Amino acid sequence: MATISSKAQAMPASAIRKLVPLADAAKANGTKVYHLNVGQPDIKSPQCALEAVRNNTLDHVSYTNSAGMIELRQGLVEKYYKKIGIDLAVPEILVTVAGSEAVDIALQVTCDTGDELIVMEPYYTNYNTFCFMNGITLKAVHTDIREGFSVPDMARFEELITPRTKAILISNPGNPTGTLYTKEQMLALGEIARKHDLFLISDEVYREFCYTDEPHFSAMNIPGLEQNVILIDSVSKRYNLCGCRVGCIASHNKEVMAAVLKYAQARLCPPVYGQLAALGALDTPDSYFAAVREEYIRRRDAMVDGLNAIPGVYSPRPMGAFYTVAEMPVDDGERFARGMPEEFRIDGETVMITPAASFYKTPGFGRNHMRIAYVLEVPKIKRALHILEEGLKAYPGRI
Amino acid sequence: MATISSKAQAMPASAIRKLVPLADAAKANGTKVYHLNVGQPDIKSPQCALEAVRNNTLDHVSYTNSAGMIELRQGLVEKYYKKIGIDLAVPEILVTVAGSEAVDIALQVTCDTGDELIVMEPYYTNYNTFCFMNGITLKAVHTDIREGFSVPDMARFEELITPRTKAILISNPGNPTGTLYTKEQMLALGEIARKHDLFLISDEVYREFCYTDEPHFSAMNIPGLEQNVILIDSVSKRYNLCGCRVGCIASHNKEVMAAVLKYAQARLCPPVYGQLAALGALDTPDSYFAAVREEYIRRRDAMVDGLNAIPGVYSPRPMGAFYTVAEMPVDDGERFARGMPEEFRIDGETVMITPAASFYKTPGFGRNHMRIAYVLEVPKIKRALHILEEGLKAYPGRI
Repeated sequence: MATISSKAQAMPASAIRKLVPLADAAKANGTKVYHLNVGQPDIKSPQCALEAVRNNTLDHVSYTNSAGMIELRQGLVEKYYKKIGIDLAVPEILVTVAGSEAVDIALQVTCDTGDELIVMEPYYTNYNTFCFMNGITLKAVHTDIREGFSVPDMARFEELITPRTKAILISNPGNPTGTLYTKEQMLALGEIARKHDLFLISDEVYREFCYTDEPHFSAMNIPGLEQNVILIDSVSKRYNLCGCRVGCIASHNKEVMAAVLKYAQARLCPPVYGQLAALGALDTPDSYFAAVREEYIRRRDAMVDGLNAIPGVYSPRPMGAFYTVAEMPVDDGERFARGMPEEFRIDGETVMITPAASFYKTPGFGRNHMRIAYVLEVPKIKRALHILEEGLKAYPGRI
Repeated sequence: MATISSKAQAMPASAIRKLVPLADAAKANGTKVYHLNVGQPDIKSPQCALEAVRNNTLDHVSYTNSAGMIELRQGLVEKYYKKIGIDLAVPEILVTVAGSEAVDIALQVTCDTGDELIVMEPYYTNYNTFCFMNGITLKAVHTDIREGFSVPDMARFEELITPRTKAILISNPGNPTGTLYTKEQMLALGEIARKHDLFLISDEVYREFCYTDEPHFSAMNIPGLEQNVILIDSVSKRYNLCGCRVGCIASHNKEVMAAVLKYAQARLCPPVYGQLAALGALDTPDSYFAAVREEYIRRRDAMVDGLNAIPGVYSPRPMGAFYTVAEMPVDDGERFARGMPEEFRIDGETVMITPAASFYKTPGFGRNHMRIAYVLEVPKIKRALHILEEGLKAYPGRI
């Protein structure tokens, strides 16, 4: 009998998505599930994005250019990036099938099989998956929950750099930690990249979700690092258009963009309707972002204050994105996370959170850490926290 | 300075897509371009598909399940596959980002780096690209234009099989040849797969474009081969929804589908609006397919008769898809194909076709072969053929 590849057998399942069937099973039994496990906000998309799709007049849905619709690339450059202080020309931006494809292509363009990539742990687990798919070795600089997952000393990066290291990949603001890097930290990272001739791949899909008074400092604006920086972006979080599957990859490095285009051509084009939504979304008023930001600050505070009020639970107060990583008094985070939808109910309701162990490379870390998305309204967050607290009391592996 | 990966440098550019900038340049100069180079039909999508998107009531565009919307998977099983005689259960089908992603995932699930895959040449050039990306060696059984690119003797396959051969990948009806395989040929291919424990990956995205009176015979219906067959499908061609980027991968092999899901989870989900269009398309009336089929038979005949009337040109008469591979009296097909949009005009009009050399693995084959898509109305095909004929007369490398 034909057997699947060893690689497919060893391929890691998504820590975030593999719990989905448990939620489906709970719902099938009439249970209400509070989803704190997926970064899927309940906030409405901008009306201009939704209407751009509803009012489309296509009578057949053709391929676009592999690099995306020219109107969208121009619009991103003129209406979005220029406004936020990122200077790009149209050939320096290519539309991707969301941030996921942008990361996958950026890794393939920078790293050969056997090359090494440095990330900070805890990291977005699919970074590891894309490295695995491409035969790239992921190496992790540890960041500590008690230090708010801040960027550690640059010496920690230099210890990991070898002749096979090709790139540093960061997420800013960070998924799963919500950590926002300062301009000084970004410049320090840039200095390491410059010194060792590394690419700096900067995933900034949560850029609009910053909760300090400082503006977000993009890797694209590190002086003198133009040829090393590759920007990963997406409309998924910015406009609550996760399902559109539209993002982009951008770089001032012509060789990089020429290679990116070859990968883009292999999959023909990004989704057309999603591109129409992204095009419409360019007219989103500033008031939309301001309202969303205020709402997320309320949610974050409700979540973080609530978590820290539960005995044995600790969460830093993240300054970006809409996640936090919390430490919980459990022996095995995955067992606890599975147990909630499988067994635990209060008045027919349960909670899903994501175990964070697979967000760490260093053995032993993260076993009692959980990624929690604060993507629900405050009253729902409060209710979910109550269920979580009671679930922790009932959990047999409590420590 | 940071340099891109060796793999990205060596990555082949799409033979089909790399001529696009030439067309863009010609259009920018006011030239009208007849596109015979891309399989992008001008036929309208079914109204039910277009309306499903226009009438959507989403107020935010969330992720769907990584395997696709359950309603779409159920609909494909019940309303489409059942009707055409392919028996599938919902867990046996996973929605992909069009046929491209389905091929990419199928290759990764069946082949490790260094493994071998067998195709018939000339083949869809992106098969080679996806093999390259995944470190898989593509081996090609030659098929001959003078035999209508028919399936050759099974001994030709067996000569190529080694312990590293993991799968045979076919396109039926074929891109670029338009060849339609008979039930007997499919059974013979199935016998080879069974005998050598190979997967048979069957790309059937052109299934609705068959011009014989025999029904299309799917690899899914080869008796006793249920555990070996992986079906690649797409709504792109079937409903003229190329830009929706929705397809699927299907197999009765549980191990295969479990692995496919892991790859699907890494990219989160297929595009939502495209899925809505695909869901709407399930209500397409039979009359739509019948009308499209009749139109393509007219176009094929106009194209093939016209090609064969040009001195020195030969094309078989394909029984499926909407392409033909034609032999032309030129020294270098790529040079000729580039020269048309770059230099040749009749009354401000030119023609684009795709050089087919990169569709062959065997050195020396295909240098004077062209892939031609008959995706325009008959009068436009006739006009394009006239321009092509004159272009051939003017071409300095005519042989």
